[in-house]
Amino acid sequence: MERPDPGGLQEVERVLVTEKSWRPCPKARRRLRGCLEWVKKQLFRVGEDWYFLFFLGVLMATISFMMDFLVSRLYQAHQWLYQEIGDILVLKYLSWTMYPMALAAFSSGFSQSITPHSGGSGIGELKTILTGVVLEDYLAIHNFGAKVVGLTCTLACGSTLFLGKVGPFVHLSAMAAAYLGKMRTSVTGEYENKFKQNEMLVAAQAVGVATVFGAPISGVLFSIEVMSSHFAVRDYWRGFFAATCGAFMFRLLTVFSSEQETIVAVFKSDFKLDFPFDLLETFFFLILGAICGLVGCAYLFCQRWMMVAVKENWLTAKLLATDKPIYTVLAVLLLASITFPPGLGQLMASRLTMKEYLTSLFDNRTWGALVPNSSWVGDPPGGLWQEWFHPSATIFGTLAFFLVMKFWMLILATTLPLPAGYFMPIFIYGAAIGRLLGETVAFLFPRGLHTGGTPRPILPAGYALAGAAAFSGSVTHAVSTALLVCEATGHLGHVLPTVLAVLVANAITQKHQPSFYDGPIIVKKLPYLPPIRSRHMASYQVVVEEFMERQVVALAKGDGFEEVLVALDASADAEYPVLESTGPPMLVGTISRTQLVAFLQSHKHPQAPPEEKLATTGTLGDNCTIEPIMLQLSPWTSLHQAHHLFELLKLQRIFVTRFGELVGAVSRVELRRAIEELTNPK
Amino acid sequence: MERPDPGGLQEVERVLVTEKSWRPCPKARRRLRGCLEWVKKQLFRVGEDWYFLFFLGVLMATISFMMDFLVSRLYQAHQWLYQEIGDILVLKYLSWTMYPMALAAFSSGFSQSITPHSGGSGIGELKTILTGVVLEDYLAIHNFGAKVVGLTCTLACGSTLFLGKVGPFVHLSAMAAAYLGKMRTSVTGEYENKFKQNEMLVAAQAVGVATVFGAPISGVLFSIEVMSSHFAVRDYWRGFFAATCGAFMFRLLTVFSSEQETIVAVFKSDFKLDFPFDLLETFFFLILGAICGLVGCAYLFCQRWMMVAVKENWLTAKLLATDKPIYTVLAVLLLASITFPPGLGQLMASRLTMKEYLTSLFDNRTWGALVPNSSWVGDPPGGLWQEWFHPSATIFGTLAFFLVMKFWMLILATTLPLPAGYFMPIFIYGAAIGRLLGETVAFLFPRGLHTGGTPRPILPAGYALAGAAAFSGSVTHAVSTALLVCEATGHLGHVLPTVLAVLVANAITQKHQPSFYDGPIIVKKLPYLPPIRSRHMASYQVVVEEFMERQVVALAKGDGFEEVLVALDASADAEYPVLESTGPPMLVGTISRTQLVAFLQSHKHPQAPPEEKLATTGTLGDNCTIEPIMLQLSPWTSLHQAHHLFELLKLQRIFVTRFGELVGAVSRVELRRAIEELTNPK
Repeated sequence: MERPDPGGLQEVERVLVTEKSWRPCPKARRRLRGCLEWVKKQLFRVGEDWYFLFFLGVLMATISFMMDFLVSRLYQAHQWLYQEIGDILVLKYLSWTMYPMALAAFSSGFSQSITPHSGGSGIGELKTILTGVVLEDYLAIHNFGAKVVGLTCTLACGSTLFLGKVGPFVHLSAMAAAYLGKMRTSVTGEYENKFKQNEMLVAAQAVGVATVFGAPISGVLFSIEVMSSHFAVRDYWRGFFAATCGAFMFRLLTVFSSEQETIVAVFKSDFKLDFPFDLLETFFFLILGAICGLVGCAYLFCQRWMMVAVKENWLTAKLLATDKPIYTVLAVLLLASITFPPGLGQLMASRLTMKEYLTSLFDNRTWGALVPNSSWVGDPPGGLWQEWFHPSATIFGTLAFFLVMKFWMLILATTLPLPAGYFMPIFIYGAAIGRLLGETVAFLFPRGLHTGGTPRPILPAGYALAGAAAFSGSVTHAVSTALLVCEATGHLGHVLPTVLAVLVANAITQKHQPSFYDGPIIVKKLPYLPPIRSRHMASYQVVVEEFMERQVVALAKGDGFEEVLVALDASADAEYPVLESTGPPMLVGTISRTQLVAFLQSHKHPQAPPEEKLATTGTLGDNCTIEPIMLQLSPWTSLHQAHHLFELLKLQRIFVTRFGELVGAVSRVELRRAIEELTNPK
Repeated sequence: MERPDPGGLQEVERVLVTEKSWRPCPKARRRLRGCLEWVKKQLFRVGEDWYFLFFLGVLMATISFMMDFLVSRLYQAHQWLYQEIGDILVLKYLSWTMYPMALAAFSSGFSQSITPHSGGSGIGELKTILTGVVLEDYLAIHNFGAKVVGLTCTLACGSTLFLGKVGPFVHLSAMAAAYLGKMRTSVTGEYENKFKQNEMLVAAQAVGVATVFGAPISGVLFSIEVMSSHFAVRDYWRGFFAATCGAFMFRLLTVFSSEQETIVAVFKSDFKLDFPFDLLETFFFLILGAICGLVGCAYLFCQRWMMVAVKENWLTAKLLATDKPIYTVLAVLLLASITFPPGLGQLMASRLTMKEYLTSLFDNRTWGALVPNSSWVGDPPGGLWQEWFHPSATIFGTLAFFLVMKFWMLILATTLPLPAGYFMPIFIYGAAIGRLLGETVAFLFPRGLHTGGTPRPILPAGYALAGAAAFSGSVTHAVSTALLVCEATGHLGHVLPTVLAVLVANAITQKHQPSFYDGPIIVKKLPYLPPIRSRHMASYQVVVEEFMERQVVALAKGDGFEEVLVALDASADAEYPVLESTGPPMLVGTISRTQLVAFLQSHKHPQAPPEEKLATTGTLGDNCTIEPIMLQLSPWTSLHQAHHLFELLKLQRIFVTRFGELVGAVSRVELRRAIEELTNPK
């Protein structure tokens, strides 16, 4: 290699040559070093979002996998106990009921003792946080451990409790994101950004869903649909990236643990792909959608009724207030007694786990056609569908009995104060509805609906898929469940009828009932903004002046110690408006409560003894930074516009000015009241 | 049936019985009639969105199907001509080149003669419209016919031109939605709602994509990603519904026309599902993503360069300005000569149609393994892959040659002034990249990468899938193409590696090049708002005061004829601010330009002859409705916040007030200038 020797570089070159004369090509080496520096800089940008998202995805996937692993071991222990105990019915009954009772009681007691926020799925609260309301405790990291342990115990109860994992996992992943975000800001020293925090929470939800179902795309979509009314496309990319990392890691771990040979869908099915469904069957899929929608309405209504009833009944209310584990134990005892396999359990396939329920319902074979050909003993083991077969009730009887019993059992289970998800049971329930209809159609048309040519038998599994999507979609008011079933089973052949069924079911439920996640928000009275329906054209006519709060505690620029003290006493707002001291009350800006408190602490009370070494009397205008006003409403802004702004900008409170003068304020409370008056006019 | 006879109803009953005594059960009949009335009312709610969306979906699906049908017939005519003409090379050449030349010239001339807006894909303009800018002509219905006819001719040129259908179809469906919306408002007499119109346009985009690919879910997602930066979930449901109707209808029509036995994916593939890919192959998928990202960058750069070069070169600029068909004919002649099958065309499989290109590239077999076993003649016909085989060049040679040639040919084709989409060619190009890499990997590892157990051969088709998604995703800056390939082929096995490849490709392209749809917006200088990158933290420091327009033409409340005339002359704004006439210039509200013109027309000029029968002199405050101000910025609002508001609320211009006094205005122009200064500081 040549070494050029221009005049200017001579000196430098010489030094280099003298110092390290035994190393060749200093130029190339310098360039290489520069390159490595650049790579290093790229790799160690700690604050970079994408590393953060990657880490979040991988972390949650690992936790999800570990939890699954632990749950399956705990469940196996229960099965082993149940089988080893012999044929004595009482012992069998005790082992069947005691194990889940103990686990549920521990789950309930442990999680509640650490933090009262860890019960339930946590999605309602997360939804409220995403609208901009601050519920700090909900994302505190000490909830994390409680929820992980509690959820593991809940899931280990298996199908006795019939509860799932999705909701709490979304909550867990939001907690992890919030904690990692705090760590990041403390490491990089950046100032904490509200926008960025929200972006991360949105990505965390997607990770939560994706690491449970191993479905990145529908994970993102489902979390968007369930959580927000508006979203930014940049959030969507972040969610996509994090969810893919999570889902990939989650599936990868199953390969490393030798469960699977390569990466496949979570509930892999082996459908016949060549002829998924006949065109005429679309009609039955639409009927299935309608049935799911109606059952969804009934379920939502009963669940909300039950939530209120449990709170109002003096016995349950007292138990839930003081002795949560006892309430849990009693409810689980009832549920476990009903699912006891030698008793009623044999009519509802209660020996299957949650995953086996789904796998069996998505079974490719037509059960109705299998039954006459096989006996209970002769068939090879592993046919999960046999659990559904009962000699006297037939599969139709067991499926119907399962649906009737699980309806109220599931509603009872949702009142339990333990960390648990309610999506998976709904998913299975929907699959059972679909399977029942599918088997019925297959029974009615054993040669299929195809008129000419070769007979094309009907696939009841397709109905199970569509049913799962339609019922879970109708209950959660989401349409992306259609994609979720496809991704979770790895089968796309039924995507169109599934989407149709989901749309029909959603049309029915959205019209008549608030969603599964909004119900608890309404019951718990969280500060959530109801939507304005498009048919409420009156929302364009109602203006802010009519519903704004007129009594706003305000400060003036020249105010001193005493006025600030009075204002702080008069209201508990987080922000106080500051007005011009002279002339009309022009709005100048806002001061936060914490800043006012700091002002009070650093200034002297006018009547204080003079030896205190604090600054002498000062005014807000001189000694306190006043935040300028970014945005203000007019008294003539319409309700519709105000609602739109609150939703889009995640506002909490905004001031109303007329020609610059402060005339009032609007917060979520006033907005909600105005919308309610619009919906139910007096 | 019993007829109860309570006292109150006796009279009514008697009348009924007397009048129609020969008809039984009046009560049941009355109830039935009420029921029918209700059903009728439900069915005939003309203004109801869902009927509208259904109709839109079905309409566009029908048009899409008809167009496909016509195109295939026109293409068959060309093939017939080419085969019938015998073996004389000159005649063959003429028939090969003249047919597409004539079609393209007609397409270009016809569409341009009706409206100059019908060229290109129209997505850039639609994107601009969706940000709130009014480009009325673009959605005018007379574009519709021109674009349909032009697009049919363009598509009938087949793979010679190598252009697609998606972009124009999105534009077509937006035009249809706008027209139907206008019809609806004129029928129902509702006042035209800007929000509603936007909702419909968003749904229309989804319909456009869904009716081309028969893919409802990814249709919605793709249109969201490409079109907007923020999205409302309620729009998403509408899009979903309309897209499903469209996709279902589109697939249904193929069944009715006996093309398919039942509803299947558009590019149905028959992949082996049991072992889609080995874990180690993920590495190659990542490499594929990186390659697609780099090629995407190069493509975007060259395309933008070409767009500018064609405009600046005096010859092409003159041709494009006056003789568009001649430019088209010359370019098509060049393209057709290169693809002439006995010439260079045999090295790039030029006899395949666009659809056959995709089907062949997604072929389940490994071409490299097929070649040694078969000869050109011996293999059964229908193996499309044989078109890719050339005895001296092998499939690797033809694929590489295809990629090199199509790179510049496609860029040349995008400059043609005819209605055409550029997504499909990019999709095919990506599939070819993927196939080439897949075949190479399969050649290097003939027994697959699986270490122990049975050998699992590598599926090059999986790479083609991932390549198509990654390249089209990187060029359009979208990640939902990953789902699009899955829906279009009905195969979900490769979803995870595909998503990974798409993410890698996107990461590379988004960092270095504006997207395929933003490029033309930049070149055409449409009023589009550039995004603020998250690393531009300075956008929090720049405040509105620094970049707002200070010279705002304003009116006062007491202004009369002459002042209004002066103001209308002084600026061409759509809205004028109105100030308080006395005291400081307080902002009262706004008046639209059209209202001011009406005011001028209805009022008398002060110097007019007194015989005119118009109202005498009046002032704005008394004789003109002043719209109240909804929203106003402060001079201290940050650039970031202002940008956020413009994006979210689709604002065009907003006034800035300091303590109620008008101090300036901010429009997209000022905002863009401020952002550009931030990106390229002086």
